[in-house]
Amino acid sequence: MSLVSAQALRDFVASAYAAVGVSGLEADTIAELQVKADLRGSEGHGVFRLPQYIRRIKAGAVNVKPRIRIERERAGTALVDGDNGMGHLVMKFAAEVAIAKAKVAGIGWAGAKMSNHAGPAALYAMMPLEAGMIGLYLAVGNANHLAPWGGLDMLLSTNPIAVAVPALDEPPIVLDMATTVAAYGKVKTAAQRGEQMPLGWMIDREGRPLTDPKRANEGLLLPLGGMEAGFKGYGLSLVFGLLAGTLNGAAMGRNVIDFNNDDTSVTNTGHAVVAIDPEAFGDAMQFRANVDALIRDIRGSKRLPGVERIWMPGEQSHLRYAEALRDGVMLSGPLAASLDKLADDLGIAKLRRA
Amino acid sequence: MSLVSAQALRDFVASAYAAVGVSGLEADTIAELQVKADLRGSEGHGVFRLPQYIRRIKAGAVNVKPRIRIERERAGTALVDGDNGMGHLVMKFAAEVAIAKAKVAGIGWAGAKMSNHAGPAALYAMMPLEAGMIGLYLAVGNANHLAPWGGLDMLLSTNPIAVAVPALDEPPIVLDMATTVAAYGKVKTAAQRGEQMPLGWMIDREGRPLTDPKRANEGLLLPLGGMEAGFKGYGLSLVFGLLAGTLNGAAMGRNVIDFNNDDTSVTNTGHAVVAIDPEAFGDAMQFRANVDALIRDIRGSKRLPGVERIWMPGEQSHLRYAEALRDGVMLSGPLAASLDKLADDLGIAKLRRA
Repeated sequence: MSLVSAQALRDFVASAYAAVGVSGLEADTIAELQVKADLRGSEGHGVFRLPQYIRRIKAGAVNVKPRIRIERERAGTALVDGDNGMGHLVMKFAAEVAIAKAKVAGIGWAGAKMSNHAGPAALYAMMPLEAGMIGLYLAVGNANHLAPWGGLDMLLSTNPIAVAVPALDEPPIVLDMATTVAAYGKVKTAAQRGEQMPLGWMIDREGRPLTDPKRANEGLLLPLGGMEAGFKGYGLSLVFGLLAGTLNGAAMGRNVIDFNNDDTSVTNTGHAVVAIDPEAFGDAMQFRANVDALIRDIRGSKRLPGVERIWMPGEQSHLRYAEALRDGVMLSGPLAASLDKLADDLGIAKLRRA
Repeated sequence: MSLVSAQALRDFVASAYAAVGVSGLEADTIAELQVKADLRGSEGHGVFRLPQYIRRIKAGAVNVKPRIRIERERAGTALVDGDNGMGHLVMKFAAEVAIAKAKVAGIGWAGAKMSNHAGPAALYAMMPLEAGMIGLYLAVGNANHLAPWGGLDMLLSTNPIAVAVPALDEPPIVLDMATTVAAYGKVKTAAQRGEQMPLGWMIDREGRPLTDPKRANEGLLLPLGGMEAGFKGYGLSLVFGLLAGTLNGAAMGRNVIDFNNDDTSVTNTGHAVVAIDPEAFGDAMQFRANVDALIRDIRGSKRLPGVERIWMPGEQSHLRYAEALRDGVMLSGPLAASLDKLADDLGIAKLRRA
């Protein structure tokens, strides 16, 4: 394991993007967001993805000089054309559009097409928090690992949802979840760590449990609800995909490119980010105080035997973020080695260890 | 079992509301929506609830002459004050507001407070379909049967989501799901039919499986994801409740009234209905054709052994609705008896059997 500081990680990531032609300002923006994923504990969506992102840029599948723009808009909505830029840039742009619209219209819903993988959903749902707003984020995942309920063909992805709700003195509530039992990023992390997956994450194409993450490409993720109520997870994946993908003219269903096994095709990734101004519904400070009261009721409520603490969605990530900013983050040996190799390939300085 | 026609059921329900002081037009509106629940197969949310609704009206807990109005609005949002009217009336009003706003702003999000239980979520998510729009609906459930993840205190409800997406030649996709493994209405239906519940729907307060629906008030519903990933269902219930309840100044958490065991308290039920105009994001007809293509890809895809057909969310309800309109619906013996008793109590004609 290697300990690295947040700043060292940001510098390294930004230098990698700069080395493949991304402008300095945009490289910094991407680095800030990707490292935030690691700091919050979303390892499967952070710097771990860097070699893959760089590989796809070098293969010409991602535009390093995108002209991101609003293609169509109304008072409460916008369709953003990402011009095949890095998803982080496209969705930061979209979130800013959504927030600006919500300031006037009460709500702003910005859909994006011609985007790319953007990392953890929470990053974009949290952007409206800085304006005192509620944020929502939906996306079409960048590889289909999920079959329709009762089916075998992988026509759906883990299409995630994130919802961020501001509180007053408490940390915001930040739900970030894939519509499968486990996100595919967790499968990849388990594979890299040489760990087995729990029962219930995946099945093989005969419907049998699959626990070896190295065999993940032979299997299907189970939708949220598992064998008992997986038709609900299937339904959520489908409708979030329709809202984030089909509605925006982005890829969905069989048009989704498996970006884990294809470095050259344009993904036309679709996402949506929504900002809601609480002041449009009542007194915003009263709302935030009511969120605090709810959090405290839940945290202070009776626990099942053996449970030490009841957590709010996002609360552990919030604490991890503060710790990691202060103490740095631990990278696994294989991950650190892959970043060193990337540095050699790109001719940039290796990541500084703390 | 008794077979009744849709029209006989509507007439009976409307006459029951008229008998307790609801105006004729509003009684017809409520009856139309409540019977639609039965026709679509949502028995737990249809005429089955009529005796309870009437009991609460007679106890003074629901206002039969509400002045439903917009309290606050912006271009894309509205807060509707339901004036403690029947939820069906409040949410039909809110859906109309959302649709009107979406026609101009691209999106309309109407939140409601001081409302009441409104039946199945799908009814309101489907209203924007008639204007060619996508509909979303969220609500705070009217009884807390769910504990926070790791907790024992029932501070959360089954807070449902519904999403309706128009297609072109195919029926619309209509997802309607509680954020628990099973909706509480299904528990009530099982109890009335004298059936046991499957393992995994509920646990008792020691964490043991609970399968007798007559003991439901001793137990907790399991959040979607069950023992494996129930923190996700907990998170969804929480954030949908924040959006449908807390944001609108409606009940959430410990302020939720258990309307199954309390006939007299005002519930201050919160909901939200959202309309999205596909034309704000691109060509609406192309969008609908793309939805058709996705439906056909999914329906025609390979199936697991033993699976006869892959269903879209809402497709079975759509077929049931057409059949029930033509053939009528079957009511269980206990349900028919409870409606006959209600007729006697109210001094109205009994429900006509087909």
